[in-house]
Parts: sequence; C-alpha cells; structure tokens
Amino acid sequence: MGVISYGDLVLIVYEKRKWLIKVESGKKFQTHLSIIDLDRVVGLPYGSKVNFGVDYLFLKPTLEDIIMKYKRLTQIIYPKDAGYILVKLNITPGMEVLEMGTGSGALTSYIANSLRPTGKVITYDINEKFTTIAKENVKRALLESWIEFRNFDGNLPKAEFDSAFIDLSDPWLYVEKIWSSLKPSSPVGFLLPTVDQLEKLDKSLKETGFWIDETVEIFLRRMVVAEGRTRPSGLMVGHTAYLTFARKSEHKNTNIDTVMNNTHVT
Amino acid sequence: MGVISYGDLVLIVYEKRKWLIKVESGKKFQTHLSIIDLDRVVGLPYGSKVNFGVDYLFLKPTLEDIIMKYKRLTQIIYPKDAGYILVKLNITPGMEVLEMGTGSGALTSYIANSLRPTGKVITYDINEKFTTIAKENVKRALLESWIEFRNFDGNLPKAEFDSAFIDLSDPWLYVEKIWSSLKPSSPVGFLLPTVDQLEKLDKSLKETGFWIDETVEIFLRRMVVAEGRTRPSGLMVGHTAYLTFARKSEHKNTNIDTVMNNTHVT
Amino acid sequence: MGVISYGDLVLIVYEKRKWLIKVESGKKFQTHLSIIDLDRVVGLPYGSKVNFGVDYLFLKPTLEDIIMKYKRLTQIIYPKDAGYILVKLNITPGMEVLEMGTGSGALTSYIANSLRPTGKVITYDINEKFTTIAKENVKRALLESWIEFRNFDGNLPKAEFDSAFIDLSDPWLYVEKIWSSLKPSSPVGFLLPTVDQLEKLDKSLKETGFWIDETVEIFLRRMVVAEGRTRPSGLMVGHTAYLTFARKSEHKNTNIDTVMNNTHVT
Amino acid sequence: MGVISYGDLVLIVYEKRKWLIKVESGKKFQTHLSIIDLDRVVGLPYGSKVNFGVDYLFLKPTLEDIIMKYKRLTQIIYPKDAGYILVKLNITPGMEVLEMGTGSGALTSYIANSLRPTGKVITYDINEKFTTIAKENVKRALLESWIEFRNFDGNLPKAEFDSAFIDLSDPWLYVEKIWSSLKPSSPVGFLLPTVDQLEKLDKSLKETGFWIDETVEIFLRRMVVAEGRTRPSGLMVGHTAYLTFARKSEHKNTNIDTVMNNTHVT
Repeated sequence: MGVISYGDLVLIVYEKRKWLIKVESGKKFQTHLSIIDLDRVVGLPYGSKVNFGVDYLFLKPTLEDIIMKYKRLTQIIYPKDAGYILVKLNITPGMEVLEMGTGSGALTSYIANSLRPTGKVITYDINEKFTTIAKENVKRALLESWIEFRNFDGNLPKAEFDSAFIDLSDPWLYVEKIWSSLKPSSPVGFLLPTVDQLEKLDKSLKETGFWIDETVEIFLRRMVVAEGRTRPSGLMVGHTAYLTFARKSEHKNTNIDTVMNNTHVT
Repeated sequence: MGVISYGDLVLIVYEKRKWLIKVESGKKFQTHLSIIDLDRVVGLPYGSKVNFGVDYLFLKPTLEDIIMKYKRLTQIIYPKDAGYILVKLNITPGMEVLEMGTGSGALTSYIANSLRPTGKVITYDINEKFTTIAKENVKRALLESWIEFRNFDGNLPKAEFDSAFIDLSDPWLYVEKIWSSLKPSSPVGFLLPTVDQLEKLDKSLKETGFWIDETVEIFLRRMVVAEGRTRPSGLMVGHTAYLTFARKSEHKNTNIDTVMNNTHVT
Repeated sequence: MGVISYGDLVLIVYEKRKWLIKVESGKKFQTHLSIIDLDRVVGLPYGSKVNFGVDYLFLKPTLEDIIMKYKRLTQIIYPKDAGYILVKLNITPGMEVLEMGTGSGALTSYIANSLRPTGKVITYDINEKFTTIAKENVKRALLESWIEFRNFDGNLPKAEFDSAFIDLSDPWLYVEKIWSSLKPSSPVGFLLPTVDQLEKLDKSLKETGFWIDETVEIFLRRMVVAEGRTRPSGLMVGHTAYLTFARKSEHKNTNIDTVMNNTHVT
Repeated sequence: MGVISYGDLVLIVYEKRKWLIKVESGKKFQTHLSIIDLDRVVGLPYGSKVNFGVDYLFLKPTLEDIIMKYKRLTQIIYPKDAGYILVKLNITPGMEVLEMGTGSGALTSYIANSLRPTGKVITYDINEKFTTIAKENVKRALLESWIEFRNFDGNLPKAEFDSAFIDLSDPWLYVEKIWSSLKPSSPVGFLLPTVDQLEKLDKSLKETGFWIDETVEIFLRRMVVAEGRTRPSGLMVGHTAYLTFARKSEHKNTNIDTVMNNTHVT
C-alpha cells in the first residue's frame, strides 16, 4: 500500500497537465513531451517524482481525479456541485440512495464512495447507452459493489430510500413517485439548468407534500497565487445548473395511501 | 425508526424558521408564535405536520441541520465550503484524517460522518475552550466515536494520515510537520481568509515538497422561486474564505529523513 | 469655486459614515458623535478636515453622493447598473433620451448629467407621487434644466429619441410605442428583476423589430484592503435586476406605417 | 442624419457576429457567409436589414461598438468597468480629466465622450507605441478634439484636474504628483489587477492625504434568454481588475506647499 503496483490507476502530473493511466507491464505512455516507461515506476511510493526527459509526478488518484477523466456523453457534475449535494442529501455510510438520471455515473460515484461499506445507490436511467458507459466508469473507480443500475420502467420501490437525487429534464413528472419511494422526512435534490424548470418543479413539490428547503447556484473561482502577484483567474464557469433541495413531508392529498397515514394523530 | 422518540433531536420548521430541539418528556417549547407540546409529537413519523396554533413541520435533522445549530465561538464552516472539502480531500469510509484547528467542530463532524464506520478524525486545537465546545457539539451529532480530540503540543505523528485539513491563521509554520504526518501522495486542504496568507502558504508548500492543486473561492447564491416571479436572492455572502488544496509529493530537501527516501530509485 | 459656500451641498465624512448637508447660515448639524457648526466651515476649500470633537472631512459631493441620498419610495438604481446603462445606451452630450418609469429620478439624473449642456431626458411616470419626489431630488442635484417630467397618458412622440431606458414591470405592453418613438438604430435598455419578465420582453422585442444585443446581470463586490490582511468583503448584494439591451431595427410587420418604410430599398 | 453615408462607420450584424466597417465607394466586404456590396446600403436608414445571400443588419455604431473594435496592444477596459468609472469619477461635461496610462485609448474615449463639448482629457503614456495606436483609435471615434496626448516626463500640472484615472502598474510612485495635480476634493480612480498592488496603493494614498472611498471588483454574467429555457450563460469572465476610488483631501504633511494651505483655518 502506498506503492505503485501493476493494475493501479496512477495520476501523472506535469505542471498543470494531468493524465490518468493504468499501470501495466511493458506499457509505455507518450505525453506531448516525452515517453514514460511505466515499468520503471512500479514499486515507487505514490507521490514520487521521476524524470523521463522532464520530471513527472506520480500521484495516487483521488476519486475526483478518476471521475474527471470518466468517459462521458453529456456534461458531468462538477465537484463544486457534487460536494454540496453530498452535504444537503445527508449522505452517510449505510444509506440507501435513489438516483434518477445515471448519466456518466459521476454523482453516482461520489455518493457510492460516501455510503460504503454497507449502503447502496440505486440508479435509474432510461438510456442504456448511458448505463453502459456509467458501468464502465464506476468499475474503474472500484465502486461497482455499492451501485445497482436499473432501467427505469416507470416504477420505483416504496418507502425505501434515505435520500434521492434527480437529474432529469422533467422531474415534475416523477415527483409523486419520488415522494412514495422515500422514507419519511428524507432529503431529495434536483439538478436543473433553466429557471422555467425550477418553477415547474417548485409547483409540483408543493402540490405533492415536500418541504422546500432551498434553490441555489454555486460558483467557483480559482485564484492565481504567486508571490506579490496574486489575483483571481481571468476565466470562470458562469453556470452549470441550479440545485433545488427538499424533504419529504406529509402528502397534500390526505386520502392517498401513504406510508404515513396510519400513524398520524389528529 | 422513522418515528419521533424521546431523546431524539427534531427539526421544527415554520415557513423559513427552524428550531433544533431535543424531545424530552414533559417538555414544552415556545416559538414566537405559540407553544409546542413535545409529548404530543412523540410516536409520529418524521415529516409530520402538527398544529399548535399554526402548522409546524417535524423533520428528522440532517447532519447539516445539527451543525448549523452548533454552539460556536468563531465562524463555522459553511456547507458550500464543507462539501467541496469532502470531495477534494477524497474523504472515504475508513480513512484516518488529520484536522488542525478544531474550532467548533463543524468540519470535524462533516469529515467524521463521511469516514465511518472504521475511520477516524484526529483533531488538534491549542485552545481548550474550543475543544470543550466542539466535544459537546459532536456528541449532539452522535459522532464522538469517530473523533479524537488532541491538544496540540507541537508534535504530529509520522506518516499516519490519508488526508488533512488545516484551519489555522499561520499554517506555513506547520507545513513541514504536516508533510511528515501524511502518507505519500495524500491530499491536504487549507482554509485562509486573506490573500497574504495564500501567498505565504503557497511559498512554504512549494519549498517543502507539496504539489499544489488549486486555490479556489466558492460562492453560493439562493434563488427565490415563485411561479412567474423567480429571481436571485437580493442578499448573498460575499466571502467566507479561500481554500487551497495540495498533495504530498517528494520533499525538496532530499537529505531529510522522510518516509519516502528508502524506496526512491534514481 | 472649490470653497465651501452658503447654499452648497457638502458631504461630511467620518470614517465610513457619510452625511449630505446643505450649508446654511447659523445651521448646526448633529452626528452621533458631536455637533458640527456649519458656519465654521464656510470659506474652507473642499477636502478640508475640521475638528468638531472628532475630525470630519468636508467633501464636494459627486453626483453619486447626491443620488445615493435621494428621497425614495422604491429601490433606486445602483451605480454598478447605472454606469453600465450609460455606456450601453451610448449617452452623449446633446442627446434626447426617453425614460419610462421615473421612480425617484436616480437614473434620470445620471443620464441628464451625461447629456448636458444641450440634451434632454424626457421622463414618464404614471404615479404622480414618484414625479413629485423625483422633481425635488433632481433639483437638489441642479439637473432640472435637462429633465422634462411628463405624466404618461399612453402616448409617446414619434421618432424623436436617440436612446431610451425603460423601468416598468410590464414593458412588453409598450414595446410597439417605444419602437415608434426611437430614431432608427437607437439603443434601448430595460431593467427587470425576474426571469419571467425577461422572457416576455424578449418575445415582444423579437416580434416588433428590435435587434437584441444582450441580457446581463452585474455583481459588485467590495474588497477590504489592509496591509497583509486584504480580503473580499463578507457581504454583498446578491441581485438588483437584470438588464436587457436592444436596438431599433426594421419593424417585423412591413405594412406598418413606420419612419423607415419610405426610404427602404428592396 | 440617420441615413448610411460614405465615410460612415457602420456596424454590420449577423446573429451574434458583428463587423465594424467604414463605408467607401466601390468597397466590398466579405464575411464568412457572403459578400456585402457597401454601395448598395448607402442612403438606407440605419437599422435596415439588407439581404446579401443572408440578411444583414446595418446599425449605427455606439461608442462601445467602436471601442470594442479598437486596435490594441494590451487588454482594453471592459464596459462593465468603464461605466462604473464614469459614475465614480463624476465625469460631467466641461471637466478637465487626467488619465495616466493611455493604453489603447478605450477609457480615454469613454471619458472624452462624456465631458464634451467643453471638457478635455489629458492622457499620459510613457510608451509611444501606445500613444500612436490610441491616437488612431480615438480619431476613428471622432473624439480627438477632446483628448490631449502627452508623453509623461515625470511632471504633471498643479491643481488643474477635476478628476483622474490611473492605469499604471506602480501607481504608488505617482500618488504625490497626482495629489498635487488635482483640484481639492476631486475623485481619482485606479485600475489594478493584483491584490499586492491594492495594498501598496492603499498605503500610499493614506500617507499622502487621500480619503479612500472603496475598492471593488465588478462581475458581469450574460443570460441566455429563450422562452421556457432561460438560464445564465455557461461562460463568464472571472476577473479583469480591481478598481480603487479615492478623493483628494488635505495632505498629511502640513508643511507641504499645497494648494490648500493658505485657506485652511484652525
């Protein structure tokens, strides 16, 4: 442990460039600067600097490093948003978490990593292309044991989940089902790029019986730090998406057959 | 489980107001609107709405809910920053994490929650007042089993930690010790309010042998969502702190007796 | 000139506190700290520091200083937005500018100041209370000669204005009239707090024959500058309003009796 | 007036692309889409749409349109910053304004436009290359009558200016001279990209006798407006520069031979 071995993923760093490479016997990796002979780094501790024409750094990749190199068909979730989601959804080891909209499996992976060793993410997508790529991705991150991929056929289990995250373009269509699938009081989050979606979701959450916590937008700006010349970075991402968070409360329609209605006193 | 019981913390919500209350026999809690008889909610499922003059919602608090009500002598870390730190520090169940600057124990708690059931946060502070309050706080969040409080006497263990977070006003004084206390390639984060601190830290990280990943600032803006009238909130927090992230690499001074130097090939 | 005289407005400054006071014979002004005898500062150059228990600074107010102290019934425009509007509307001495929505006369004043000595702002409001207050305000700023206040009766003059700014809650109702009142190619700006308004305006601008330049949001964050401790301010305004800018192009309905249609070749 | 004529600058627009072209007899202009025969648009009103394969819009350029197409050797000032500077410097027709750091003449032009017909910008640069280009630029904007270009030889006139803007990398070296060149109480602004510069400037302003109003940073984010799909733009500029504003007060060194010292009562 702590030593680069065959089969490992290694993050090779040169200045601001990063490459995520699987170490295999006899493998050579070519950057724009030189050729790296991977056999030569096996046995070295992670964090070592090795010269192949220029000095490369060989780091043990974090989950973020691996996710940022995921194969993707769509925009993946940014760390600035993923971190906030983990906090707001109260992700804790042992939880069962619902995800609708697997995408490339980026958020799936962040959540899976945070609920092991006994929890599970149940993630749904209707697009099998996404599921195929996401499965490959999470395997690379060694997280497949805590993720169950399902094809969405219109049904969700009842009162099973401790938390949920929904990354769909029309989540208001599923708010009833999501409500039913959550354990009482559980948090749920939604990712939505446009304002119109926020309004539609807000309306359906209120009608169904969710307590709406907040809708936020998160910005991240990098600083260029240099002695006597520190300043903010000239470029930044202007917008990824809005995030809405809510919690399951009582259903508005009190005649509905809910998981709560037997225990409710008047 | 899922039912409000004596001894539980419950989050009582009325519109945008929230109160975190421990449910105890015979206890009555007075808001600005009415008196809540806590005995009457025992046995109800979390998420229930109960009328005590007005309708109150009784939610199961998330870790964030509990932390936001921590006793504090200083500013506690915001969720926008805490979430990003969890991602960047690669916090994973089972890890041993170093924290310098316990403060009120807010970040300590977020980290502890994310590394259970087998990991541990070792948190140092030189101010015993902080430690006393932090201990009380984390007990409230039921996280004391994964946190070890230590008084900082100038020493840190060697090569023990998988990750570290440093919230001190002069972290550059400790960069050598932090370097030694981390396992090779481990990530470390720093919270710093001013630009001058960023520059001093940057210099000491470079001199010691850290790879500097990034320095960022995170903004969060709430949206006021209402059908046909959605707009951003008129107020926002302008600045909490800058966050610098780095990873342990080889020590610059190759004569130093490091945990790496025996295994390094040339 | 350059010397404090009876009848002048003077900006009195103590640390971060500012008061805008008219200098009158025998007048005394009381701050939370002491009493200022205004007779004693008459004849001093602007910029003087005079001790009345504590040192006060006596500045010649800028237009912004005066506007920020305007009487107001609603939120006045912020300098961050006003400055951008001046640039985008191409405000130049000599122009005739239309304003719909006088409000407290803040933007009216910024524009009037920038088009003198020969230009004019024609400003409309339907609420006479606003007009009364705005008239008082602009008189204080000595700008009344370049402003004409009108009550809006549903009509605007034809092809008269070089530029226009519209601060109404339902500007899409007036887009036809605004189009007709502008000289060909003239810029127009709109201030709108909500996203729904942006969409409605956008639609009506496109239908009428405006070229839409951009919709923007402007943020301003103050820095706390102090040797070795510089950092961004902890508080900032999250949102004032969105600004949409467009230019008069050809009318979509080519049968309309426009100011252009005689000269247009095919 | 209002009709496209030979010798005019015209802004040709196709969707989000813009070209600034001088209309000359026989001139043809080629875009990536087609060839525009400029003779054919002469005599048309500004704002006309003319088909040359695709529909182009022919707008009368605003000052901003012209400035954004200035030749430049360095980054020019952005409209978001320029507008705020106009407000903070109290630029008013008739003023005499000092500029140090002509650059490409962008801010020079915004200021010149706002102080005509009787005012003047006196702008200094030490680099003659900049001055040459700036002269060409302001001629294009027809603003040369209100701008005087000077080579900076270390001297500034005394007590002459109503306002000043300084865009130099080491403005603290000139704060004494700037102080002397301003009329009492006049505002001055500084553009500085880094935090270290802010601190050095702040110190020298305090030592010399300026009242420091504020240091700010301005952000602009565009909105993508579309019915039912409105959202913020995915990209934004992260940082252009900080702006510091101050006003001339009494000199700290009361023995100095200042423009104030004869009139000051004690």
